[in-house]
Amino acid sequence: MYKSLDNGSITSPKGFSAQGVHCGIKKKNKDLALIYSESPCTVSGVFTLNKVKAAPVLISKNIVDAGKPVRAVLINSGVANACTGDDGYDDAAEIQHYCAEKLNLMSGEVLISSTGVIGKRLPVQIMKNGIDVISQKLSDEGGINAAEAILTTDTRRKSFAYQIELSGGCVFLGGICKGSGMIMPNMATMLAFITTDAKIENLLLKQLLTQAVNTSFNKISVDGETSTNDMVLMLANGKSNVELFAGSNDQEIFQSALNNICIEMAKSIVRDGEGATKFITINVTGAHSTEDADLVGKTIANSPLVKTAFNGQDANWGRILSAAGMSGADINPSQMSIKFNDLSILEPGFNITLHEQKALEVLSLEEITLNVNLNGGNFSSTWWTCDFSEEYVRINANYRT
Amino acid sequence: MYKSLDNGSITSPKGFSAQGVHCGIKKKNKDLALIYSESPCTVSGVFTLNKVKAAPVLISKNIVDAGKPVRAVLINSGVANACTGDDGYDDAAEIQHYCAEKLNLMSGEVLISSTGVIGKRLPVQIMKNGIDVISQKLSDEGGINAAEAILTTDTRRKSFAYQIELSGGCVFLGGICKGSGMIMPNMATMLAFITTDAKIENLLLKQLLTQAVNTSFNKISVDGETSTNDMVLMLANGKSNVELFAGSNDQEIFQSALNNICIEMAKSIVRDGEGATKFITINVTGAHSTEDADLVGKTIANSPLVKTAFNGQDANWGRILSAAGMSGADINPSQMSIKFNDLSILEPGFNITLHEQKALEVLSLEEITLNVNLNGGNFSSTWWTCDFSEEYVRINANYRT
Repeated sequence: MYKSLDNGSITSPKGFSAQGVHCGIKKKNKDLALIYSESPCTVSGVFTLNKVKAAPVLISKNIVDAGKPVRAVLINSGVANACTGDDGYDDAAEIQHYCAEKLNLMSGEVLISSTGVIGKRLPVQIMKNGIDVISQKLSDEGGINAAEAILTTDTRRKSFAYQIELSGGCVFLGGICKGSGMIMPNMATMLAFITTDAKIENLLLKQLLTQAVNTSFNKISVDGETSTNDMVLMLANGKSNVELFAGSNDQEIFQSALNNICIEMAKSIVRDGEGATKFITINVTGAHSTEDADLVGKTIANSPLVKTAFNGQDANWGRILSAAGMSGADINPSQMSIKFNDLSILEPGFNITLHEQKALEVLSLEEITLNVNLNGGNFSSTWWTCDFSEEYVRINANYRT
Repeated sequence: MYKSLDNGSITSPKGFSAQGVHCGIKKKNKDLALIYSESPCTVSGVFTLNKVKAAPVLISKNIVDAGKPVRAVLINSGVANACTGDDGYDDAAEIQHYCAEKLNLMSGEVLISSTGVIGKRLPVQIMKNGIDVISQKLSDEGGINAAEAILTTDTRRKSFAYQIELSGGCVFLGGICKGSGMIMPNMATMLAFITTDAKIENLLLKQLLTQAVNTSFNKISVDGETSTNDMVLMLANGKSNVELFAGSNDQEIFQSALNNICIEMAKSIVRDGEGATKFITINVTGAHSTEDADLVGKTIANSPLVKTAFNGQDANWGRILSAAGMSGADINPSQMSIKFNDLSILEPGFNITLHEQKALEVLSLEEITLNVNLNGGNFSSTWWTCDFSEEYVRINANYRT
């Protein structure tokens, strides 16, 4: 029903162009990205729940809430424009207005987004010069450059696209994202931008994006505990002339593709976690409710003791049990079983099946699946996390300097 | 009204003896402690809320809940006896029974406590041999040895005592404790044992201990998110012949002393946090409620990004603001002010007063007070935490091996 495209990006869907350049916000590397649609788009967005919201979050959230068509997204890295007060808000509005003018659009058609150091003002003149350049360089092959321009401490770009066969024809879906500090995902600034040339009305777009975010970015991050700048935006320009209708079979296919591209993006963020050496999938099964499964998965995924144990290739299942026990979920510890990949470590009744040498073989792998069966009910949940290394501390002890 | 005693311990109050020995649970270092009162004690306790409760927690909680007098506490380090099922419970009961026999007591008069590796069985015969020895060596100067025998990854013993002048005469208060992994305090196994020769009936004792724990251990730890073995026990044997009555002025004096000895113990645990290089006091003021002040204090105290910044001596106030914003408290970020000791970093209106060189001078100190004023209401809260170092990861990556 859908397939992944090599070198795909947000410019894979028809009618979208983009670009990424270095304009001087950061000392080196690209720091300004622009996504542009040749026709009006419906838009949906998910924004940080942190009470400290950066200026671009306030501005873009207003636009999304208004429900009117949009045409472009301007993103900068290097400066987050958070905790900058009224001046910072004015800076953001000025940049947005300038960008709209250059593109012959209304200000309300241009969404903005920022990531980087908190408390610093945007270099407005430098960014205006950058907008002069980038607005001339928009290209339908520019998605990859845009993917590079939104990065901060990420070590590699994150860009994906799918081709989806629907009953009315073929549509495309593209996405780029960035993460950082994913060792405790609730603190990371995470940005994701998704484009599609399917025609999707606002309400349905919101429904699709909400479900996709819940199965992907929210499984590496904690609701209500996000950074000042977190943002996921999805734009649909209808250029494929294929419309998606609520309740149709096409909706299911598209939702599945959207979930998967979001999961791919979320996993790429975890894989590139600061200092991460291992990628860990946590499957929680046998819970009495989805909420319980999520509580257990989230608590294990965020436990520094579990994460340091994975870093040390230590089969410390006691920490996994303890994390489950403090999660708040309704569990019976004596019924639990734990496996690393297919290797049984603990069976119900605190029956320890751990074979240290075999466990070490699994734990020495770069990708490990932790299977936690609560053996209580029929609900499950999948989470993704990485290990916790000394390198993480090194990176974060001196981030500003 | 009360003063601290040099080299004071749980044996400073009249009628208490204790000892700590190496019996062979651990390869080296003391691993078995016994606290004994020559007369019956009222007892109060606070236990872990983790659903995974170690066998000694289940047994001791039952005794405390029954409200009958007790005479002794047996504590071992090295093996936590958690996640050991019915067999582990039987081991604990056997040890408790054996210890009671040796002391000519009923089993229900002996409380037990364990800390160490999860999932390992107690070495019952080795411990019985240890009980044979330790029960013969009880001494009214043995508190310090007991303080050493309960340690795991702690680097120094934690032992305190106060002399308190009450209207009816002089009473003593003693306490020993252990911590570990305090970088994320919600995961640490924390044990504390408090003795007094004041006469205090059960209900009042519970009230006194609850308040003291809330202002001390719960300000470095998160309610409901504790390890499998956490326990605070307080025994009062009345040997001073001075009785404490509910509602009296003496109660206030005693409560103040008890709060302070618990705060001293809690701070000693943070100071000895795994890999900690800095001790940080967080004063949150100007909150709309005590609950809000606690939410902000707790979230800052637990933030790995804030803690790594302190480790790097980086004046990253943005992370402090972001932590406050995601705490769930009712705050207005634009009204907040932040000081490191007396040095202003941020004033209301996002007015950045940070002077990097002066900030570095403060941040290079080993003890730092972070003052966060929400400038909203009249409630406040004090929390204690430590920085987050690469050494923490090293310690925890290979704890079992």
